[in-house]
Amino acid sequence: MPHILLLQGPNLNLLGQRETSIYGDIDLNSINNAAKAQVEQADMQFSSLQSNSESELIQRIHQAKVDKVSLIVFNPAAFTHTSVALRDALLAVAIPFIEVHLSNPHTRENFRRHSYFSDKALAVIAGCGADSYRYAIDAAIKYIQKP
Amino acid sequence: MPHILLLQGPNLNLLGQRETSIYGDIDLNSINNAAKAQVEQADMQFSSLQSNSESELIQRIHQAKVDKVSLIVFNPAAFTHTSVALRDALLAVAIPFIEVHLSNPHTRENFRRHSYFSDKALAVIAGCGADSYRYAIDAAIKYIQKP
Amino acid sequence: MPHILLLQGPNLNLLGQRETSIYGDIDLNSINNAAKAQVEQADMQFSSLQSNSESELIQRIHQAKVDKVSLIVFNPAAFTHTSVALRDALLAVAIPFIEVHLSNPHTRENFRRHSYFSDKALAVIAGCGADSYRYAIDAAIKYIQKP
Amino acid sequence: MPHILLLQGPNLNLLGQRETSIYGDIDLNSINNAAKAQVEQADMQFSSLQSNSESELIQRIHQAKVDKVSLIVFNPAAFTHTSVALRDALLAVAIPFIEVHLSNPHTRENFRRHSYFSDKALAVIAGCGADSYRYAIDAAIKYIQKP
Amino acid sequence: MPHILLLQGPNLNLLGQRETSIYGDIDLNSINNAAKAQVEQADMQFSSLQSNSESELIQRIHQAKVDKVSLIVFNPAAFTHTSVALRDALLAVAIPFIEVHLSNPHTRENFRRHSYFSDKALAVIAGCGADSYRYAIDAAIKYIQKP
Amino acid sequence: MPHILLLQGPNLNLLGQRETSIYGDIDLNSINNAAKAQVEQADMQFSSLQSNSESELIQRIHQAKVDKVSLIVFNPAAFTHTSVALRDALLAVAIPFIEVHLSNPHTRENFRRHSYFSDKALAVIAGCGADSYRYAIDAAIKYIQKP
Amino acid sequence: MPHILLLQGPNLNLLGQRETSIYGDIDLNSINNAAKAQVEQADMQFSSLQSNSESELIQRIHQAKVDKVSLIVFNPAAFTHTSVALRDALLAVAIPFIEVHLSNPHTRENFRRHSYFSDKALAVIAGCGADSYRYAIDAAIKYIQKP
Amino acid sequence: MPHILLLQGPNLNLLGQRETSIYGDIDLNSINNAAKAQVEQADMQFSSLQSNSESELIQRIHQAKVDKVSLIVFNPAAFTHTSVALRDALLAVAIPFIEVHLSNPHTRENFRRHSYFSDKALAVIAGCGADSYRYAIDAAIKYIQKP
Amino acid sequence: MPHILLLQGPNLNLLGQRETSIYGDIDLNSINNAAKAQVEQADMQFSSLQSNSESELIQRIHQAKVDKVSLIVFNPAAFTHTSVALRDALLAVAIPFIEVHLSNPHTRENFRRHSYFSDKALAVIAGCGADSYRYAIDAAIKYIQKP
Amino acid sequence: MPHILLLQGPNLNLLGQRETSIYGDIDLNSINNAAKAQVEQADMQFSSLQSNSESELIQRIHQAKVDKVSLIVFNPAAFTHTSVALRDALLAVAIPFIEVHLSNPHTRENFRRHSYFSDKALAVIAGCGADSYRYAIDAAIKYIQKP
Amino acid sequence: MPHILLLQGPNLNLLGQRETSIYGDIDLNSINNAAKAQVEQADMQFSSLQSNSESELIQRIHQAKVDKVSLIVFNPAAFTHTSVALRDALLAVAIPFIEVHLSNPHTRENFRRHSYFSDKALAVIAGCGADSYRYAIDAAIKYIQKP
Amino acid sequence: MPHILLLQGPNLNLLGQRETSIYGDIDLNSINNAAKAQVEQADMQFSSLQSNSESELIQRIHQAKVDKVSLIVFNPAAFTHTSVALRDALLAVAIPFIEVHLSNPHTRENFRRHSYFSDKALAVIAGCGADSYRYAIDAAIKYIQKP
Repeated sequence: MPHILLLQGPNLNLLGQRETSIYGDIDLNSINNAAKAQVEQADMQFSSLQSNSESELIQRIHQAKVDKVSLIVFNPAAFTHTSVALRDALLAVAIPFIEVHLSNPHTRENFRRHSYFSDKALAVIAGCGADSYRYAIDAAIKYIQKP
Repeated sequence: MPHILLLQGPNLNLLGQRETSIYGDIDLNSINNAAKAQVEQADMQFSSLQSNSESELIQRIHQAKVDKVSLIVFNPAAFTHTSVALRDALLAVAIPFIEVHLSNPHTRENFRRHSYFSDKALAVIAGCGADSYRYAIDAAIKYIQKP
Repeated sequence: MPHILLLQGPNLNLLGQRETSIYGDIDLNSINNAAKAQVEQADMQFSSLQSNSESELIQRIHQAKVDKVSLIVFNPAAFTHTSVALRDALLAVAIPFIEVHLSNPHTRENFRRHSYFSDKALAVIAGCGADSYRYAIDAAIKYIQKP
Repeated sequence: MPHILLLQGPNLNLLGQRETSIYGDIDLNSINNAAKAQVEQADMQFSSLQSNSESELIQRIHQAKVDKVSLIVFNPAAFTHTSVALRDALLAVAIPFIEVHLSNPHTRENFRRHSYFSDKALAVIAGCGADSYRYAIDAAIKYIQKP
Repeated sequence: MPHILLLQGPNLNLLGQRETSIYGDIDLNSINNAAKAQVEQADMQFSSLQSNSESELIQRIHQAKVDKVSLIVFNPAAFTHTSVALRDALLAVAIPFIEVHLSNPHTRENFRRHSYFSDKALAVIAGCGADSYRYAIDAAIKYIQKP
Repeated sequence: MPHILLLQGPNLNLLGQRETSIYGDIDLNSINNAAKAQVEQADMQFSSLQSNSESELIQRIHQAKVDKVSLIVFNPAAFTHTSVALRDALLAVAIPFIEVHLSNPHTRENFRRHSYFSDKALAVIAGCGADSYRYAIDAAIKYIQKP
Repeated sequence: MPHILLLQGPNLNLLGQRETSIYGDIDLNSINNAAKAQVEQADMQFSSLQSNSESELIQRIHQAKVDKVSLIVFNPAAFTHTSVALRDALLAVAIPFIEVHLSNPHTRENFRRHSYFSDKALAVIAGCGADSYRYAIDAAIKYIQKP
Repeated sequence: MPHILLLQGPNLNLLGQRETSIYGDIDLNSINNAAKAQVEQADMQFSSLQSNSESELIQRIHQAKVDKVSLIVFNPAAFTHTSVALRDALLAVAIPFIEVHLSNPHTRENFRRHSYFSDKALAVIAGCGADSYRYAIDAAIKYIQKP
Repeated sequence: MPHILLLQGPNLNLLGQRETSIYGDIDLNSINNAAKAQVEQADMQFSSLQSNSESELIQRIHQAKVDKVSLIVFNPAAFTHTSVALRDALLAVAIPFIEVHLSNPHTRENFRRHSYFSDKALAVIAGCGADSYRYAIDAAIKYIQKP
Repeated sequence: MPHILLLQGPNLNLLGQRETSIYGDIDLNSINNAAKAQVEQADMQFSSLQSNSESELIQRIHQAKVDKVSLIVFNPAAFTHTSVALRDALLAVAIPFIEVHLSNPHTRENFRRHSYFSDKALAVIAGCGADSYRYAIDAAIKYIQKP
Repeated sequence: MPHILLLQGPNLNLLGQRETSIYGDIDLNSINNAAKAQVEQADMQFSSLQSNSESELIQRIHQAKVDKVSLIVFNPAAFTHTSVALRDALLAVAIPFIEVHLSNPHTRENFRRHSYFSDKALAVIAGCGADSYRYAIDAAIKYIQKP
Repeated sequence: MPHILLLQGPNLNLLGQRETSIYGDIDLNSINNAAKAQVEQADMQFSSLQSNSESELIQRIHQAKVDKVSLIVFNPAAFTHTSVALRDALLAVAIPFIEVHLSNPHTRENFRRHSYFSDKALAVIAGCGADSYRYAIDAAIKYIQKP
């Protein structure tokens, strides 16, 4: 059975508790539940992890290879701009991934216009709030089902 | 009645006729028809234009203001990296827009990592093929319906 | 009889219809009429063109040579920052020109601080609203009348 | 009664004595007299200072606040490219200003393409010789008279 | 029958009418006629277009694919330095091309040292005046005839 | 009761054990004790954490919001130059902070002249050894007490 | 008797008269008086100078050597970013100094992130308002008293 | 007894399980065992750690000082390009180290050409596969034995 | 009698022995013989030199002045990107030259996009294989014969 | 009678009082006296000025034109790297000048490798201590005497 | 019989005669002899060349192809940072090579951090003194013996 | 007996035969003779070499150490901007040197503003024609005679 892993980077655990005028009052749990339903609806397995720790995210990516994860949907958050180690982990396990952002990083500081992931990602989806995840999961399912 | 305009930049008229191994055999017509159906399903009006001419695209954006277009879904293609005039047209009419790309420009030449639109776009969706448009239209409808 | 051509770049057709708090409610027509009166007052011929199309502006510059235009007053708008072709057209016909901007581009995005025209212009006038044109026309007349 | 101050940066005291083929034989005195007439004609008060000393110019700007100067017309000359202290003085007194240049600095060395003033100026007028001042004074009067 | 298309970018219609001390008094017509003769001599079909419009050049490149053009000889003129859309059009139709310039752009402004075409061109020929075209056509014929 | 949190980045646990000729023989404990006394003297609550782990520091910042911490005094040490995640954590909890350094980073390698924190900090204090903390705590108390 | 000199750069004479919402209504006099008291309290001599003139500040630094000044507390204001001559004066007299800023320059324009003084200063204190001086004087006293 | 510590950065735990055509099928265990034998053969003590966690690596370096480690052989992997904290840890404990890479990072992405360690390392050895470690251990032993 | 010198830079002696799929099996001898025939056909004198030594090439250029060479056809190969000394030799003898490359250097590494010769060359011809020389010799003859 | 002016920039009044191990114990007076003797020996007039004030140096350069100074020997010291106003003063009076430095600025900080004067100077002499002046005066005399 | 060539760049002939505190008193002869023994021990042929001349090194590389050299161990010394011609020679003969340095170039001037060879080398070994060669020869033998 | 070596880089053998309007009609021989007389006058030994070959210049510098040369006066000509090998040769033999240029390289192309020698030279003298050598020899003698 195909398996989709949803990975969330640092500070995303605060979702729904801060700046709700921007992100709505949806929290990480709701996003995970919605993604889980969407994935299981397509008869695929779902797992997820949010972590503020780069090493925990690396371990999870390594484990994903053991678990035969088919595709990773990844919001690297601040690690987008700084973590070569996460990039290397994704390249090492050679699992295709989709990069997701809740807001549009191009509208913020200049240093957010560079990502260590975009040039290796299947797709980049940014700025659609919680729907960014819904589109990414949908694209992930499509990619796996592609004959 | 809300109105969504789908704008397509240079060379996209060739869609479905070239590099079908990458983009599938879907052509521009099919994309437009699918988008039209999706928009009308939401009880909104739809129009679209593909043009290889920067000035024609500018005119269409100006006209959009007269037509009271609510939101533009825009794939600027090569103009992504060069057209300040299209950026200015969008800023002048002050209609919110979503930037869309069929493939992921970050995986290509370095000069494609800069966009004159991303920092003004509501959202950026890239690399999901024809689904990039489906997600963008969906996000557009959501944005318009937001109370 | 000396002949002054007033050229206007992309999006300037929207003048007076947008952001009137910034630009006043003067529209392109009024600017053209005022310039025409000012030029004819000095016993010179006047013509003008606004276009959103780079090629139309190039043709007009080529035609200016045939028409023996003495001086061009040019607001290249967004093309200021991107059009080598317009720069080349001006150099090819070797007609002196004055660069004009309604607002002051230095107060905006960084990429607006570079102009493909300023280093070849007789003068650069920016930020005086409709008066930018009046000063430029005045300077043009003076330049032509210089013994 | 509104009050316009005309400030002139380093080396401008030599005007009319050097490179007269470029600048004509008009000297600083004539420019001041013309500006004075133009301002008084509009029922406003006029004062002026040329200085080769950055600190003298700073003092004059500080004094301008005490004198309730309404607007400063400023040709910073070489200080255009180097003086953060003059920029800070203008920001500190919060008096609006117009940047003026006799010739067009963009046609000269590369380091003259950056100004510490343009991004804070109401307007920038360059390359019209003595008329640069006339236009700037006119724009200043207009700005003050704007209801 | 093999088919060679000669494409000419903006301002080249003025050839022979300006700066004849540099370019000689040959005009675009003569260049086209010479190229046509040279191509037909090799039992190949010839067509040509000069345009000041980026979109017209793009359309012509698209049409070239329909016409089964074997090779394009292209002088992009000012578009050399600015047009990603023309680059994309050439890549989309996947027709090999040779970049040609009448004069040597490296002897001019710094911004002319970058070309959006050279890294995708079979060959680059610059600075030989009208002979630049003769050599390019010759190289084109050779390339097509290569077993 | 107001609450001040003192956060210390990587390698600061070694304080007092290395390079004592530079930093004196004061150790982290002494700094914490002095800070605690200083804060409690002002009738405020004090807590502190040193960690070599970016994620532990992030958690602590998140927890600070739950604890209703009023102000963070932060020496990010090496993370000053690399951690967008810590910057984001501080922005997410929206607790004001003061950046502190024992030595003056500008006297060291070039890459130490950029900080991901300074442009968001209330104040930056560097190079006063253990007194850097004393001043920062004092400024923190003042900031909180400001009516 | 040790001697501390407090030097203040351009525009700081306006303190307390402008932007009082930011800086409080404290003026330069009060800062000087407070510093004087603080220094004399430690049985040291105090002198101070504010100047808008780079050369006056240089002279004062030269004189400081004659006066056997032990340490300079310096707020170079706008000269922070432009004056190599003041840097050289400080290096020539070889008197240690502490760099002080009322506000935090990193939160302002990009060009304010470079200082010609920080890499030679004992310490840098910025953003604590009038307290910046109090901390700097304290650090100066400590530095002098260090056995 | 001298003591050599072998430190391995993120993702190196996957060694031998991925891309075996490049790295051979040697795994981390074998490398450690070979290094251990080589070190003990020289009558020195050996220890090693692989970690995906920057903080764990920092702790181990701090502990190395307590353990009186003589020299560290370090493959920082992805942290090569991003970790100032590890650099600082090495500088703080002042233990000499040798930088090692299995493959040659210069043949990969541009951002891999910069290392935060090379300018402080005794030696840099890259591209010899498992032998990179053998050479580094040998050089370490030699360095320790040098009279 | 006019005299054309064909100069060949480093590694070109290997021509025809390596990478024959790219360059064909033509060797340097054949190129020289063809060029010699072409030049003598035009009643001009021909000489040539290939050298891997920068100084030998410089000597030959100096000698060219003594020999009254009219024009140099030069393939500087790798020296294109590194030799200011050869550039200076050509400027010192003031003999016009044409820069030639067998392949198109723009399609290779980034550092090959800069040439120390192009901005001083009459013409630049690249990417036509052995025909690059034939065109260059032809252009040389034309240039000499120009009345 | 020809007239040579020796100009000295900021901090040079300290000569002979500081860092005598580097500069010897020669002071500014001795340098002036030696230069005076050398100039008068050649039957020319001599004057000199040292100033820490940019504006005083500018005035002196302006006065030099009135005095019909033939050549200026100038050590701009720290103004070398920052003063466009002094550069402009020299260009305005159009008096040839020679740039002199006691020590060699290239051996110091990176920002000292750029001079605003070198590209307009007849000659640049640096690093010969007091002899730098002797050579410059000698070159000045030679330049004036050149028929 | 496999054949290893040891190439040494400029100034390495001075080895053992200068800075012996750094490099030890080993000279080039000893290094060559040790390398020869090591290679012959593995039943392979050995040759070597040190040269200060770029062209001599190029010739030797060309000859290496004739001699069927299997692998080159190369210390390009100063040519590391400047010679595209040597890079091209190595690419032209397509013989694999290992880059070696006695000391670690990253600890020196910034311009030494770029190498024209590293991105094409099998391996890079730097900073192990004479052992750098021993490791490189060992790696070369291993590479050749790899089945 | 002290010994001064005068080294001349590429193309300087042409001196006096080219561009005599700039350099006068003095040739290399005359410069050498004058330098020889000047050196012998001071009871020192003189030798000289001009070469277009980098390796010959390197050899000569190596030999200089054997010959116990006290100081080298060096005009590296074009090698100023490109030769790390010559820089390394000078550093290796540790003989102090003075950099000389006939003309002022700062008045020419931008790439001539960087020298690989200036930051290691005792002094830099440029733009005084043949006198540049005279001053340099004088400074060399002075440097050697300094007690």
